[in-house]
Amino acid sequence: MELKDYIATINDYPKPGIIFRDISPLMADGDAYKYAVTEIEQYARDKQIDMIVGPEARGFIIGCPVATQLGVGFAPVRKPGKLPRSVISADYEKEYGKDTLTMHADSIKPGQRVLIVDDLLATGGTMKATIELVEKMGGIVAGLAFLIELDDLRGRENLGDYDYKVLMHY
Amino acid sequence: MELKDYIATINDYPKPGIIFRDISPLMADGDAYKYAVTEIEQYARDKQIDMIVGPEARGFIIGCPVATQLGVGFAPVRKPGKLPRSVISADYEKEYGKDTLTMHADSIKPGQRVLIVDDLLATGGTMKATIELVEKMGGIVAGLAFLIELDDLRGRENLGDYDYKVLMHY
Repeated sequence: MELKDYIATINDYPKPGIIFRDISPLMADGDAYKYAVTEIEQYARDKQIDMIVGPEARGFIIGCPVATQLGVGFAPVRKPGKLPRSVISADYEKEYGKDTLTMHADSIKPGQRVLIVDDLLATGGTMKATIELVEKMGGIVAGLAFLIELDDLRGRENLGDYDYKVLMHY
Repeated sequence: MELKDYIATINDYPKPGIIFRDISPLMADGDAYKYAVTEIEQYARDKQIDMIVGPEARGFIIGCPVATQLGVGFAPVRKPGKLPRSVISADYEKEYGKDTLTMHADSIKPGQRVLIVDDLLATGGTMKATIELVEKMGGIVAGLAFLIELDDLRGRENLGDYDYKVLMHY
């Protein structure tokens, strides 16, 4: 299956000069959506994954079905103020200033093997903060999986030597 | 399986007097998460569902695995400014003033049978706006599924005569 057939390209969104890759046509197609999730599930199969972690909100769209197909749990990464129990947090750089991500402080147990899933790898800021949160709790980052990597933004160089799965490159 | 064993209760969150039901322990347990998703999938099996619709962000956590297990697509409901293509929108009442939800204007085709999924039915405001969006596009709301219904808030009375599936009542 050619997954790129299910990605919409929007020029100048969210602002002039940016090309936005929209995964919603892929999610809307039952076969393409299942295919993409299963590709990541199969990547994860031999990694003894205990938990899937994904940043809100598009990380949920990919990571949650991967978790249920593998039969493991899912731990969300959220913006501040969204999780009701004790959290840990990590800052990351955005284009203008900083932003913060949080996870429940008990969401990963020491030694658990974690696959982090998101829709898109761009500059890697969100992913870097997510890795920091997982490792702060003693989790082992066993892999990172993305639908799309924007190669020109060199996000991988910000992240270090983890195992990667990427379904589409632009 | 007793799903309520996997719900955390937080008193006085997000403010005094409110009892918050936290689904994150359920999501964190691979067996409980899969069980809950499969209960909703089985409810949907005889309804000839074409699309799952869920509001951000917890609606994604339940709705997306239901979609991939059924082999159908998923259409997200998002806050304004999050979807890159042409949208339709619906307002709903919150405790203080109004809020707005959006969907891509082409995300449901006329005549498609839709299951709307969310984690929680409280007053029903989010769900009412979501139903409005689906029906505005010509979709048929074939069912509504929730992990949890807060019975005292009487959300059902705001919603009308749809078919319901609820896994836990409080």
